[in-house]
Amino acid sequence: MTEFTGFDLLPTTPAGRDFVVLAENHAKQFAERATEYDARGVFPFESFKEMRESGFLSASVPHEYGGLGVGLLHDLMVGMSRLARGDAGTAVAANMHIAGAAVIVQMLRRSKADGDTVMADVLAGLLSRVSAGEVLMCFPATERGTDLTSPRMEATPTADGYVLNGRKIFGTMAPVAHLFFPTVRIPNGKGGYRTASAMVPRDTPGLQIVDNWDALGMRTSGSNDITFTDCAIPAGNIFAVRDNYGTTGQWFASFTLTAHLPLIATYLGISEAARDLAIAAAHAVKGRKRLADRVPIQQLVAEIDIDLCTCRAMLQRTARAADEFIARHQTVDPDPAESNALMKEVQCTKYVVNRRAIEVVDRAMTVCGGAAYMNQHPVARLYRDVRAGPFMQPFAPYEALEYIGKVALGLDPNLDR
Amino acid sequence: MTEFTGFDLLPTTPAGRDFVVLAENHAKQFAERATEYDARGVFPFESFKEMRESGFLSASVPHEYGGLGVGLLHDLMVGMSRLARGDAGTAVAANMHIAGAAVIVQMLRRSKADGDTVMADVLAGLLSRVSAGEVLMCFPATERGTDLTSPRMEATPTADGYVLNGRKIFGTMAPVAHLFFPTVRIPNGKGGYRTASAMVPRDTPGLQIVDNWDALGMRTSGSNDITFTDCAIPAGNIFAVRDNYGTTGQWFASFTLTAHLPLIATYLGISEAARDLAIAAAHAVKGRKRLADRVPIQQLVAEIDIDLCTCRAMLQRTARAADEFIARHQTVDPDPAESNALMKEVQCTKYVVNRRAIEVVDRAMTVCGGAAYMNQHPVARLYRDVRAGPFMQPFAPYEALEYIGKVALGLDPNLDR
Amino acid sequence: MTEFTGFDLLPTTPAGRDFVVLAENHAKQFAERATEYDARGVFPFESFKEMRESGFLSASVPHEYGGLGVGLLHDLMVGMSRLARGDAGTAVAANMHIAGAAVIVQMLRRSKADGDTVMADVLAGLLSRVSAGEVLMCFPATERGTDLTSPRMEATPTADGYVLNGRKIFGTMAPVAHLFFPTVRIPNGKGGYRTASAMVPRDTPGLQIVDNWDALGMRTSGSNDITFTDCAIPAGNIFAVRDNYGTTGQWFASFTLTAHLPLIATYLGISEAARDLAIAAAHAVKGRKRLADRVPIQQLVAEIDIDLCTCRAMLQRTARAADEFIARHQTVDPDPAESNALMKEVQCTKYVVNRRAIEVVDRAMTVCGGAAYMNQHPVARLYRDVRAGPFMQPFAPYEALEYIGKVALGLDPNLDR
Amino acid sequence: MTEFTGFDLLPTTPAGRDFVVLAENHAKQFAERATEYDARGVFPFESFKEMRESGFLSASVPHEYGGLGVGLLHDLMVGMSRLARGDAGTAVAANMHIAGAAVIVQMLRRSKADGDTVMADVLAGLLSRVSAGEVLMCFPATERGTDLTSPRMEATPTADGYVLNGRKIFGTMAPVAHLFFPTVRIPNGKGGYRTASAMVPRDTPGLQIVDNWDALGMRTSGSNDITFTDCAIPAGNIFAVRDNYGTTGQWFASFTLTAHLPLIATYLGISEAARDLAIAAAHAVKGRKRLADRVPIQQLVAEIDIDLCTCRAMLQRTARAADEFIARHQTVDPDPAESNALMKEVQCTKYVVNRRAIEVVDRAMTVCGGAAYMNQHPVARLYRDVRAGPFMQPFAPYEALEYIGKVALGLDPNLDR
Repeated sequence: MTEFTGFDLLPTTPAGRDFVVLAENHAKQFAERATEYDARGVFPFESFKEMRESGFLSASVPHEYGGLGVGLLHDLMVGMSRLARGDAGTAVAANMHIAGAAVIVQMLRRSKADGDTVMADVLAGLLSRVSAGEVLMCFPATERGTDLTSPRMEATPTADGYVLNGRKIFGTMAPVAHLFFPTVRIPNGKGGYRTASAMVPRDTPGLQIVDNWDALGMRTSGSNDITFTDCAIPAGNIFAVRDNYGTTGQWFASFTLTAHLPLIATYLGISEAARDLAIAAAHAVKGRKRLADRVPIQQLVAEIDIDLCTCRAMLQRTARAADEFIARHQTVDPDPAESNALMKEVQCTKYVVNRRAIEVVDRAMTVCGGAAYMNQHPVARLYRDVRAGPFMQPFAPYEALEYIGKVALGLDPNLDR
Repeated sequence: MTEFTGFDLLPTTPAGRDFVVLAENHAKQFAERATEYDARGVFPFESFKEMRESGFLSASVPHEYGGLGVGLLHDLMVGMSRLARGDAGTAVAANMHIAGAAVIVQMLRRSKADGDTVMADVLAGLLSRVSAGEVLMCFPATERGTDLTSPRMEATPTADGYVLNGRKIFGTMAPVAHLFFPTVRIPNGKGGYRTASAMVPRDTPGLQIVDNWDALGMRTSGSNDITFTDCAIPAGNIFAVRDNYGTTGQWFASFTLTAHLPLIATYLGISEAARDLAIAAAHAVKGRKRLADRVPIQQLVAEIDIDLCTCRAMLQRTARAADEFIARHQTVDPDPAESNALMKEVQCTKYVVNRRAIEVVDRAMTVCGGAAYMNQHPVARLYRDVRAGPFMQPFAPYEALEYIGKVALGLDPNLDR
Repeated sequence: MTEFTGFDLLPTTPAGRDFVVLAENHAKQFAERATEYDARGVFPFESFKEMRESGFLSASVPHEYGGLGVGLLHDLMVGMSRLARGDAGTAVAANMHIAGAAVIVQMLRRSKADGDTVMADVLAGLLSRVSAGEVLMCFPATERGTDLTSPRMEATPTADGYVLNGRKIFGTMAPVAHLFFPTVRIPNGKGGYRTASAMVPRDTPGLQIVDNWDALGMRTSGSNDITFTDCAIPAGNIFAVRDNYGTTGQWFASFTLTAHLPLIATYLGISEAARDLAIAAAHAVKGRKRLADRVPIQQLVAEIDIDLCTCRAMLQRTARAADEFIARHQTVDPDPAESNALMKEVQCTKYVVNRRAIEVVDRAMTVCGGAAYMNQHPVARLYRDVRAGPFMQPFAPYEALEYIGKVALGLDPNLDR
Repeated sequence: MTEFTGFDLLPTTPAGRDFVVLAENHAKQFAERATEYDARGVFPFESFKEMRESGFLSASVPHEYGGLGVGLLHDLMVGMSRLARGDAGTAVAANMHIAGAAVIVQMLRRSKADGDTVMADVLAGLLSRVSAGEVLMCFPATERGTDLTSPRMEATPTADGYVLNGRKIFGTMAPVAHLFFPTVRIPNGKGGYRTASAMVPRDTPGLQIVDNWDALGMRTSGSNDITFTDCAIPAGNIFAVRDNYGTTGQWFASFTLTAHLPLIATYLGISEAARDLAIAAAHAVKGRKRLADRVPIQQLVAEIDIDLCTCRAMLQRTARAADEFIARHQTVDPDPAESNALMKEVQCTKYVVNRRAIEVVDRAMTVCGGAAYMNQHPVARLYRDVRAGPFMQPFAPYEALEYIGKVALGLDPNLDR
C-alpha cells in the first residue's frame, strides 16, 4: 500500500530518487551562499565543482556510460526544481548541461537505430567524458534581434569544415563550459538557410566569452555573451542539420522539450523557496497577534499554495506526456501535429508556471513585510530571479499565446513576427 | 507502446472507459435538449430515465451488486466532466446519486471490515436496488443560515427511532429521488449535538419537495428545497453518527471527497463545451477576415486552452491522490493531518477550477460575439450554469482560502465563522 | 465652503442636478418592476411613458426648445448611471434616445455656425418634437458580420431620394421608437462607399421591427432586430454623409462620444446596485457571526469599493475631457490626433468600467451567497445584465486593446480586421 | 477656450506650474545619474543640493515665508510624480521633506486660528529656515514589530522636557536631514499612552543614523534606520499630542493625507517612465517586423496605457477631494466619519496605483525584452523600485482591504491586528 507522501513533486524511478537526494543536498549548501554570490555577481565555480564531484552533472547519462541514469524527463525536472530551491541561477546553469546531455542520449539512441555508427561513436564518447567530469556543455541559442528559429550566427562551409561567425547572448553556464553547441544557419545555396548545431571547443581560436553578465537576477547562471569570430571547426562538428529555418514546427517539441521542462520547473523551485520563507515569517508576532493568526495572512498563504498546487499538477502531467512522447519517438520522427500538440501543452505549462511563480514571490514578499525589501533577505533575491521566467525561450508570453492559439485553432503555428 | 491520445482527461480502467463512453453518448443527446429544458425550467425526467436504462446511474456500484463497477474516483470524475459537456445541471444531479452510491460502497467495505453485518446487509441491499434501477438517492446537506458542519435539521430520538424536522435547500435531484439522506444533528444530552445522516423514503409523511427551483442556471438539476416535518424514521435509518458538530476536521476529506471531485469536474465539462463553441465561432468570417486568423482571437483561445490545461492537470493529480487515500483507508480511519492535507488539495483544485471555468466561459462569450448574448445560444446558458461553481459546498471561495491557509500554516482548520 | 458630499458621481450644473433627481426617482420605481419585467421579457412601455411625462427623455434638449437643458455630457452620464441602478436595460434604452438628442443639439449648433439654415430648421423642429414628447428616436448601428465603420445596409439613390435595404441588430429601444436613424452606406460611384445616417419614420413601408429580443440580460432594453426592405425616404432624410467607410478615425470621437459615455456609465450603475445589495446582505447573521464582521467579507466589500472608486474616477475625468473637447469643437472639426487621443481615453474607460462592473457583480454575488443564484434575487439579474458591457459598441475588448495600443504607439488606428 | 493638453496629470495653479517645471528639469538630470547611483547604493547629496538651490524643496512653503507657495496637495502630487519619472528614490526622499513642510503650514494656520502664538512662531520660523535652505526635515514613523498607530519609541517626561529612546526604520532622507520628527508615545500616567511628534536636531547626543540602507530598490531614498538613545529635548519640541494610541481613526486622514498622496503619485511617475521606455523599445525591429507593428505588442502597450489612465484619474479625483477636505478643516477638526470616508478613498487609490504600477513595469519589461533584464537597463531598476509601493505606510495591501471594507460596512475601522 502506498504511503502518504505529501504533495511535493516526487521522482518515480530509483535513479530519479538518487538524483533528487543529491539535488536537495546541493540546494541546502547553495542556499547558504546564494545571497553572497548574488551580491558579488560572480560565477559559482565552487558549486559546479561540487556538482561535478557528486555525479549530479551526469544525471542524464545512462549507467552504461557512467552516469546516474535518470531516464525520465519527469525525474530530471523534479531534481532541477529542488536544486532551484537553493539557488535558481545555479540550477538554470546546471540544467543547460544536464538537459543537453539528455538530448545527446536521445540522439545517440536514434543514431544507433539509423545505423549511423560514426555519429553514435562521437555521442557515446561525449557522454563518457561527461560522466568522467571532463566536459561541461553550453548550448547557446539566443541572439539579439531574431528568434530561436532564425539564428543569424552563420556556419560558412570551407574546404575542410566550417567557419563560424556570430554572437550569442544569454549563453548560460559559459564561464565554466568546455564545449559550446551554438545553433547556426548554413547557406542552402538557394538564397536561404538550413539550421544546425555546431560543436566548438572552448579553446577554439575566435571564441570569446564576454564578461558582461550583470543581470537583475539569476546572477549565478553565468549567462554571458559569447562571440565567435572566424572559428574554424571540422565538418563532423556540425549536427542536426534541418530544413526548417524560420519555422516553428515539429522541431520545437522534439528538440527543445528536454531542455525546457526542467528549466520551467526551476521557477517552481523558486516559488517553493519563497513559500517556505513566507510560512516562517508568518509565525512571527507583529503587534498584538502572530501574523499566522490573521485571516488575511492565511488567505495570502492559501493563494500561494493554490499556485504551487497548480504548477506542480501541470508540470507533472506535462512531463509524463513528454516522457511518453519521447518513448514513442526514440526511433521514428513524430507527426508534426502531435509535436505541436505536446509543445502547446508545454507552453501552457510554461506560461502558467512563470506567471504563478512571480505571483507567489510577490505574495511571499507581502507576508514577510518590509524586511523582505532589504537585499540581505532571500526573498529580495527571489523577486529578481523569478522575473527571468517570462524571458526564457522559446517564447515571450505574448508569443506563447499566439502559438498556443494557432495550434488550438488548427492553424500553421508559425508566428506572425 | 502508448498511443497519442491528446490531452482530454481519460479514464484509466476498463469500467471507467465504459462509463465515459456512456457519458459521452448521453451528453450528445442531452445537449440537444439543454436549451429547451433550460428555458422551460423543468426537471429532465426523460434524461434520468435514459441514464437509468443505460446503467449509467449504477456506475459506482461494484459488479457483484450489478453495477458498472467503476472503482476509481478518478474515472467517475472523468465521466461526470463528459456528461456536463452536454448538460451540466443534469450532470450535477446525476452525480448526487452516483457519488452517493460510491460513498455507500466505501461504507459497506468498512462495515464488513468492522464485522458490522447488519449495516453491511442494509448497504448491500441498497446497492442492489440502485443497480436494479429502483432507487435514486438524494443527499441534501445545505441549510440556510448555517454551514455544512452544523446542520440545524434535527433528529429527535423517540421510543422507536427518530423524528426529523428541518428544511434543506439545494436538494439536488429531489424531483426524481426515492430515498433522501439529509444530514442531521442529534442532541447529545449535554446541550450539544452529534451529526449523522438519516435515510428517509420519499413517501414518508412529512417529507415535502417544494416546487421552488427557479435558478439563474443549473436549471435541470432539480435543486429544490425539501422540508421535513415530524418525519418518523426507524433507528436503523440513522447512519454515520459522529461527534464533530461544528468542526471542519477529518470527516470532511473522508466523507465529502467522493461527492466533490466529480462535482468540481462538471465545471471542467462546462468550460470544455464553451471552448468548443468558441473554436467553432472563430472559423466564421467577420468583416474581411476569419476571426481565427486574427491574433487577438488566437490569444483568447490560447487563454481558454491554458485554463483547460490547468484544470485538467489539477483534477487528474488530485483525483489520483484521492484514490490512493481511499485505498489506504478502506478499513482504517485516516490521520486527521492527512485528511486535511488532502482536503486542502481538493479545495485548491475546486478554487481554481470554479474560477477558471468562469473565465473560460467569459472568453468563449467574447469570441462568439453578440450572438452569444441571446438566450438561444448555448454559451448564454453556460454563462449562467458556470456561476454555480463558487456556491458549491463545502466552502465559499473566501472560506476556502481561509481553510487552505490554516492547513498550510499548521493551524486548526476550523473557520472563524 | 464646499460641503462633504461623499464620493458618488455628482452633477455639476443646475439642469444636471434636476436630471439626476428625476433619474433617482425613476430608478426607485423601475427597480420594483425590474425582476418581473426581466422574467417576462417584455418591453417596459409603462416606464417609458413615465419618463416621457416627467421630461426625463428631453434631458439633453436645450431650454429654448423645451427640454431640461442638460448641456454637459458629464451630467447626462451621471443621470444615466443613476437610472441604471434601478433598471439597466431601461437606462440603456433611454440613453439611445437622450444621447441621440444631444448629438442633434451638436449638429444643430454646427449647422447654424455653417449657415445651413435648412438643416438647422429640421434639427430644431426635431428637438421641439422631442420635448413635446412626440418623438422617441432609435439609432441602430450594428449589423451582423461587419463592424460599426462598415455598415452593409445600403441607401441607394433614386430619382427623389433613397431606397434603404438592410438589417440592423441590437436596435435598442425599437419597440417604442417613432423615428429610426440607421447608419447606412451609399455607393460613391467609384466602387466604394460613403457613410451616412438615414432618418426613417416608424410607419415607413418596408420597416419592420422583429420580435426577437430574448437575451441573457438587458431584457428591458428592447434591442430587437430591425429590417429595412426597400424603404423609400426623401433626400433630406440623409445626414452626416462622410468619406470614411471602413475607417476608425476622427469620426469616432466626434460622433459616438456622446452616446457612449453615458452608456458606459450604466455599468457603473449596475455595480453600484450590486454593491448596495452586498452591503445589505453582509449585515445578515450566518452561523455564529454577522457576515460583516468576518474579515474576508470586509475584504470582498473593499474590492467592490475599490472598483467603484476606480470607475467613478475614470468616468468623471473622461467625461470632463469630453465636455471640453465638445466645447472646443462646436464650430470647427477636431484634429484627428486629438479625436483619437480622446477616443483612446474613452476606450480605456470603457474597458475598465465594463470589466470592473462584471467583477463587482461577481463579488456581490459571493457576499449575498446562494440566495443570489435564485432568479427572484436582483443580483441574479445584474449578473446577466452586466455581461452586456463588453459587447457594447464600438469595440470588443480585444479590439479596444488593439485600438488603444495603435493610438498609443502613434500608428494609424484602423484595426487589422 | 481651453486647449488640448493631453492626459498627463497637470498642475492647476501658477505656483503648481512652476513647481512642475522645476520637477521636470530635475527629473531629466536625475534620470541620467539614476543607474549609477542605484548601482553604487549611495545617497544623492548632489541632487539634494540642486533641489535646494532651485527652490524645489521649499515648494509647499507659502510665498510670505519665502517658498514657492504651492498650496494644493493636487499640484504637489503632480510635481512629485514628475520628479519620480527621473529617479523615484530621490522623489520619495524629497517628498518626506516637502510634504512635511506642507503639514507644518497646516499646523501654523491652525495655531493662528487657535490663538496659539507660541506654536505659530515656532512653525513660522521653521518654514522660513526651510525656504532659506537651512533645514531639511525627516519624519520617521515606522518601527519594527508594530504599526503606525502604536509607536514604541518613547518620550519620557523629565524635569525640563523629554528623553527619547527608540529605533525607527525606513527613515527616508535621513542622510541629509537636519531635523528629525519621529512619532513617539508618551506614558499617560494610567498605564497607557498618548502619541506625539518630537523634534530632534541632527546633532542631538544619542541620535544616530545607521548606515544600513541596502535595499532592493529605491536605493537613492536614504531610508536608513535611526536610533535614539537617551536623546534629551526641551518640552517645546513635542507637538501634536493626541489620545489615539493604537487607533486608526480621524487622525489618519488629517495627518497622513498630505504625505501620502504625493508619495503614491511617485509610483505613477515610475510607471510613466516605464511606459516611455516600452514605447521606445517597440519601435525597434526584431525579426522581420517592428515590434510596434505586432498586435500583441500593441495590446501590451494598451494595457499599460489603460493602467496609467486608471491611476491618473484616481489620483486626480482623490487629490481634489483631499484639497477640499483640507480647505474645509483649516480651523476646525473634521468629523471622524468624513475623515475615514476620505482616507478610505485614499487607500483605494493607493491600493490600485501601487498594484497597477507594478503591472505596468512588468509589461514594459516584456515589451523591452531580454535587454531589460540587464542591470544597465533602466527598466531593471524600475522593476525593483516599484515593488516598494505595497510596503509604503500606512497599510500593507491586505490591511488596506480590511480598513476599506470596515469603513464601507460602517464598522469601527481599527484593524484586527
